[in-house]
Amino acid sequence: MPHINVNNDLPGIRGLMAFRPETAEPLGALAQVLLRDDEGISRAERELIATHVSYLNDCFYCHTSHGATACQYLGGDKALVDQVRKDYRHAPISDKLKALIAIAANVQKSGKAVTPEQIDAARELGATDREIHDTVLIAAAFCMFNRYVDGLAATTPADLDSYDARGRQIAEKGYGKHIFSVAQPVNA
Amino acid sequence: MPHINVNNDLPGIRGLMAFRPETAEPLGALAQVLLRDDEGISRAERELIATHVSYLNDCFYCHTSHGATACQYLGGDKALVDQVRKDYRHAPISDKLKALIAIAANVQKSGKAVTPEQIDAARELGATDREIHDTVLIAAAFCMFNRYVDGLAATTPADLDSYDARGRQIAEKGYGKHIFSVAQPVNA
Repeated sequence: MPHINVNNDLPGIRGLMAFRPETAEPLGALAQVLLRDDEGISRAERELIATHVSYLNDCFYCHTSHGATACQYLGGDKALVDQVRKDYRHAPISDKLKALIAIAANVQKSGKAVTPEQIDAARELGATDREIHDTVLIAAAFCMFNRYVDGLAATTPADLDSYDARGRQIAEKGYGKHIFSVAQPVNA
Repeated sequence: MPHINVNNDLPGIRGLMAFRPETAEPLGALAQVLLRDDEGISRAERELIATHVSYLNDCFYCHTSHGATACQYLGGDKALVDQVRKDYRHAPISDKLKALIAIAANVQKSGKAVTPEQIDAARELGATDREIHDTVLIAAAFCMFNRYVDGLAATTPADLDSYDARGRQIAEKGYGKHIFSVAQPVNA
């Protein structure tokens, strides 16, 4: 049960967003820009970065729902998503994405943990300033989203199928206001 | 020097926001709703929570600039702001605000670190669900802002007067687009 009475049955961040639509709107807009951008790193790569950071923060709701969304973009490859979640260094992804996830993993510890050597390594593998920027901000944003969800003890569905349904919905429609509409089906 | 070339001379988060206005807009809108709301906890209290969390995250730019803004709302009481930054439990603030800052300090560690006992303690001192919600989200948001600023090694002015000038500007105008306009004076 959440620490506060959210007055709705929506799970995870969706219940919190419906409780406080004034903050939900910029939160949804931030997710939309960061995770649905098609310039540079792909939507799948953006969701994989979010999934890995959420896993490091031990946020089950976030790493399961964003993992399910990444999976949608990756033709249903759950094994790949799970490997990036737990052991990205050995996953069959590009070296450039590995270098970006390494930066994101340090952001999860602290902004100061990011090193110039990491940035140089990503750049040598072709990462642009914009891609490095977006990687750092995605990682930082999930340090917020994860704390928001778990800090208020938001409802976390145990039914894994509901996350798959939610992943399909997000892959199709993005992070608009529908995610915190109480009229929506109650998937994760 | 920032890890990326931001193509402007603005310090701190302002330089990053000017580099990527698409993400700056929801970030500014989130700060505006969370820190300029007049319902429940005051603007000064919201900035004090932000200052304390930024201090815990060792983000000099953020705890100095938000401390300067809190100071504006508190009639220039720098000693009070500094005590909340470093030792809020003994600061001359309300017990309710102390209970909320205790929650925020646990959010800084991890969302899961927040305990039902802490929530109950705040509620017994008069905190509403909306105030608890906003406290958790302010703390979570500064875990993002701090990592964004330090994760990209944003420029951090050493001149403390420039933070005071910036605090006055924010107290007067809030967190609108002016904060990342390159036409603005280059205060912190």
